[in-house]
Amino acid sequence: MNEAATDPTQLTDEEIFSAHVGGKLEIGVTASLADPKALSIAYTPGVAKVSRAIADDPSLAAKYTWAHRLVAVVSDGTAVLGLGDIGAAASLPVMEGKAALFKTFGGLDSIPLVLNTTDVDEIVETLVRLRPSFGAVNLEDVSAPRCFELEARLIEALDCPVMHDDQHGTAVVGLAALRGANTVLGKDIANQRVVISGAGAAGIAIAKILIAAGAGEITLVDSRGIVYDGRDGLNPVKAQIAAATNGSGLKGGIAEALAGADVFIGVSSSKVSEDIIASMAKDSIVFALSNPDPEVHPDVASRHAAIVATGRSDFPNQINNVLAFPGIFRGALDAGARRITEGMKLAAAEAIAAVASDDLGPDRIVPSALDPRVGPEVAAAVAAAAKNDGVA
Amino acid sequence: MNEAATDPTQLTDEEIFSAHVGGKLEIGVTASLADPKALSIAYTPGVAKVSRAIADDPSLAAKYTWAHRLVAVVSDGTAVLGLGDIGAAASLPVMEGKAALFKTFGGLDSIPLVLNTTDVDEIVETLVRLRPSFGAVNLEDVSAPRCFELEARLIEALDCPVMHDDQHGTAVVGLAALRGANTVLGKDIANQRVVISGAGAAGIAIAKILIAAGAGEITLVDSRGIVYDGRDGLNPVKAQIAAATNGSGLKGGIAEALAGADVFIGVSSSKVSEDIIASMAKDSIVFALSNPDPEVHPDVASRHAAIVATGRSDFPNQINNVLAFPGIFRGALDAGARRITEGMKLAAAEAIAAVASDDLGPDRIVPSALDPRVGPEVAAAVAAAAKNDGVA
Repeated sequence: MNEAATDPTQLTDEEIFSAHVGGKLEIGVTASLADPKALSIAYTPGVAKVSRAIADDPSLAAKYTWAHRLVAVVSDGTAVLGLGDIGAAASLPVMEGKAALFKTFGGLDSIPLVLNTTDVDEIVETLVRLRPSFGAVNLEDVSAPRCFELEARLIEALDCPVMHDDQHGTAVVGLAALRGANTVLGKDIANQRVVISGAGAAGIAIAKILIAAGAGEITLVDSRGIVYDGRDGLNPVKAQIAAATNGSGLKGGIAEALAGADVFIGVSSSKVSEDIIASMAKDSIVFALSNPDPEVHPDVASRHAAIVATGRSDFPNQINNVLAFPGIFRGALDAGARRITEGMKLAAAEAIAAVASDDLGPDRIVPSALDPRVGPEVAAAVAAAAKNDGVA
Repeated sequence: MNEAATDPTQLTDEEIFSAHVGGKLEIGVTASLADPKALSIAYTPGVAKVSRAIADDPSLAAKYTWAHRLVAVVSDGTAVLGLGDIGAAASLPVMEGKAALFKTFGGLDSIPLVLNTTDVDEIVETLVRLRPSFGAVNLEDVSAPRCFELEARLIEALDCPVMHDDQHGTAVVGLAALRGANTVLGKDIANQRVVISGAGAAGIAIAKILIAAGAGEITLVDSRGIVYDGRDGLNPVKAQIAAATNGSGLKGGIAEALAGADVFIGVSSSKVSEDIIASMAKDSIVFALSNPDPEVHPDVASRHAAIVATGRSDFPNQINNVLAFPGIFRGALDAGARRITEGMKLAAAEAIAAVASDDLGPDRIVPSALDPRVGPEVAAAVAAAAKNDGVA
């Protein structure tokens, strides 16, 4: 167990609420206003020259404003943590926390923009109107399947880095962790059968990145059981992923899916019993990522699996999005990327895995969420991939 | 001349542009993320309790997020300084400067939101959708007469403090300066004839606050001459102010308006010749506020007027909005005010004048723009007025 870790369920209300009084962010001023001359430079009349220069050459906005390095952390409050649709105002503490993580782990400035509308057209329209105010969009806590359409529409409309972190941040760190686990166990992703419990934002994105990374076979399970091609009532996103997964044509529930499987990745909060974990293949890998209650307790999973990870800081192998998103956005903005490609996400996963590689073990398949090396390494890898992919 | 002042026209391009590289703002984090426990409090899982609490009682958002103390600095870039309609992106350096002034002189956090639309309906709609993200709106550099409708619509739609600073900030400081000048000269506003050159955002707002403050008679002059009741082609806002001003029924241009007048307030950039200034009443007051080129050079005006003020920091009596807006918004937010009333604006003007009163003289009719006492004094007066007016 990580020496500095705490059981998060032990936090007192007093500790939590007192840390949130007044919110968690503030604005800092990087330009001096200390004397009349400084004031004349940073504001009128001096600033007029900068505005005129940008009016004449809009590309100069990237040099002389904060927008090019500013991430809008956008939510409509429809899928906030495990709390569901609690609305925009109630989502704001989470978005402030996200902005705090961007700053601490990516050195990036960001502003929460929470929206009193859940209409995809209206959210797109709002961000298009605000486009000159920011340089990238981190979508957060938007419910599935709306999140898929919203992300795709924003990518087209805004022509700047846009990423729904609940999908791709989770997917990137999941892939990095699987790389680490496979290195420890001497296994190859191409020969593995992976079962993902949950076919929402995170589950679909994990499936997609594992396909891109060459996983042997993937089966998704949702609340109605195994997601298979032709199953009744699949939404378009599930229908698409059903056609690309479950090559063996499995049907049934989580028990049928996991029997003999090599890897379990849980992102659904559905509990999985010990006997089902026990039915997996030898040297299995279990990522029980639901927070704060993992799909299976890690102490139970460890009786049967070779490697166990969770989303919690008080157990080994914490799979935390903070390993990915600060560096991904930092790299994309540093490179001036117009979008975030699959190649950039894969590069981020490799960079995270590489940082872990010097100290790898069954309880160290990913770096610590607080490891200061991760953000810069991910940023550099993502920026390089952006150039390779021709989007920067 | 103020010992620390600089002629702003002497600033070099190098000084101005180098001070703007990367923009002028950054995000600061007020919550610790230093260790896993702190991370568990500020982000998941701890933050979930705060979000749940706000979902159950929306009034708690004011206590546990930054929104209640955050000002959105909003512009569509249609009337940026003296540059006109240069667009949203080019207006951003000005809005960053405004945010820097909010922080420095009001201790208030603010974020620039610049909009790629000039449609009043769309701007209102956008801010209504973003309502949970901020606690107040400072409208900035929006062209007249759209600015009047936009401000009125936002006040109704948002139910939070909304103020177009180019109107009311200028008006408040102008009134404060006139109070100071009148105290020096032993004059009473009720007996004065005031001529305002410019019937845009600032001119109209100055006229309104002077009416509220009991000015004797006010005459506005625009590019077509004196604004009088029934003049052809007046827009609705000018028609309304025409009916409330120019009681003597003057017609003609600036020369006819200023002959025998007690006070000149220029907010139009139209030049006024020395002989016209010389035609004003004895012990006249001249506020030539256009920046960087005053309507009449202060050295010229001083040959005839008893008191002269400009918008520039390198002449005595700088009439600068920064004396007003940080304290007005700070006071409104501190009080939890739902809107900014006329009483709050008048209280702000009185507070500014009061700070100047201990060191009053013909060259000291307002406090220095950098005087750290002004923001807190204005905030306290505005908060008290908000309670008096029943909006807090």
